[in-house]
Amino acid sequence: MTKHELYDNILDKESFLCVGLDTDIEKIPPHLMREDDPVFAFNREIIDATQAWCVACKLNLAFYESLGIKGMTSLEKTVTYIRRNYPDQLIIADAKRGDIGNTSEMYARAIFEYADFDALTIAPYMGEDSVKPFLAYPGKWVILLALTSNKGSEDFQMMSDADGERLFEKVLRKSKEWATDEQMMYVVGATHGKVFEDIRKIVPDHFLLVPGVGAQGGSLEEVARYGLNNCCGLLVNSSRQIIYADSTERFAEAAGAEAHKLRNEMSNYLRWITNAK
Amino acid sequence: MTKHELYDNILDKESFLCVGLDTDIEKIPPHLMREDDPVFAFNREIIDATQAWCVACKLNLAFYESLGIKGMTSLEKTVTYIRRNYPDQLIIADAKRGDIGNTSEMYARAIFEYADFDALTIAPYMGEDSVKPFLAYPGKWVILLALTSNKGSEDFQMMSDADGERLFEKVLRKSKEWATDEQMMYVVGATHGKVFEDIRKIVPDHFLLVPGVGAQGGSLEEVARYGLNNCCGLLVNSSRQIIYADSTERFAEAAGAEAHKLRNEMSNYLRWITNAK
Repeated sequence: MTKHELYDNILDKESFLCVGLDTDIEKIPPHLMREDDPVFAFNREIIDATQAWCVACKLNLAFYESLGIKGMTSLEKTVTYIRRNYPDQLIIADAKRGDIGNTSEMYARAIFEYADFDALTIAPYMGEDSVKPFLAYPGKWVILLALTSNKGSEDFQMMSDADGERLFEKVLRKSKEWATDEQMMYVVGATHGKVFEDIRKIVPDHFLLVPGVGAQGGSLEEVARYGLNNCCGLLVNSSRQIIYADSTERFAEAAGAEAHKLRNEMSNYLRWITNAK
Repeated sequence: MTKHELYDNILDKESFLCVGLDTDIEKIPPHLMREDDPVFAFNREIIDATQAWCVACKLNLAFYESLGIKGMTSLEKTVTYIRRNYPDQLIIADAKRGDIGNTSEMYARAIFEYADFDALTIAPYMGEDSVKPFLAYPGKWVILLALTSNKGSEDFQMMSDADGERLFEKVLRKSKEWATDEQMMYVVGATHGKVFEDIRKIVPDHFLLVPGVGAQGGSLEEVARYGLNNCCGLLVNSSRQIIYADSTERFAEAAGAEAHKLRNEMSNYLRWITNAK
């Protein structure tokens, strides 16, 4: 999917919502445990109920890997289901991979060839040659961790060099040379609010994938205020707030309602940029 | 496995070799392609041929994930095979994971519960709360990336703060407070030679997992000279040099011979510390 296509979808749906399918078998409604593949059954209903209000789905690979081969089967079925039924959705593998060149090539093959994801999150710690192999796939996106939403983001990402440049800023500045804003996005946690201003100074045109709204405490309004650019430039992820909105047989309806609510809020913020044009 | 047990195994075998099972289906000998599970068939023969000369096996998860569910089956069979037949081997998942707390918990479950690995490599970028969930498993090891063997290690890991402390040194110093040397090891690439002296100043007692000898150009002698401590403190990984030593039906024999050669070199270096006692 190109950046232009993504922006068109955002305008069509008046939404920059990404639904996070962090599906935990221990948290899904009990009645689904009678299904052959409870995780897939849960995902399918969540997707059907939310797709009108979102432009992207993010599958957190850890949740599937923790179930071994059965989990990987649920993952593959979910990707295939979205691809077939909702071809406009950007499908993101939240995997935070990154390794030496020949290993990164293998991960790229796993995510972009074996499984048909559109985008993959990558950790930058190992530098350029750990990221490059993922950029060899036209039409696919690399989403590099810059400033994450968790408390531990203070431990190393905020480290400053002698000139006052912080590690996450160095990651943005250097990696910008490895690929254009047509192929690279960045993870920036909603919990950092005003830091989005500093980030937009370095990467004014890139899309940012923003976790941390909802359960982790980030403010959607603040993210929109400091993060929106003239092509939207934001994909805001919500996971637990949507998929576990209700734990009864009406879970999908409740998930749809949560997604709808977030989309309505996003629709308002999008007017800031469409009115300005 | 405790640190003491690991050191005992090293003394018994006169080896601190870790065999890297980075098994690429495109590189295994053609005759194995007739097997039901060529990757497992390859691994089993490599393990049988090398286990006398090594104390650890490292499975690079990317290589298995790139084959989807079939690859994950080969991975599980390999871990089970090592566990049953060679219970003294430390089995390492080279996965370089690291995510927010609830996701790291899921990865920990995948690696330490669903698959029965002894140790897991982790990327430090997301800080303390991304590492902590992996430390909740008694007898299991976390192996944190400090200074990797690839060229890209210069991009961010070598960044210095205003006091001259480099990122990899900050990672060592901070993470040392999260767990003892009985639960944590560090990845340090063999390609950095003399930097091992600086690393030993911060973590004198920890084990270091050292990739980059062989195909990547690191020197085993240099690693031993600057890295050995009084409990050995090193696991040196070799992958391509061993497992692809030969591509005919005699591949396992050739792998065994390469491992044996490395072990004989290691045996000499180990005398530096055992003679000193």
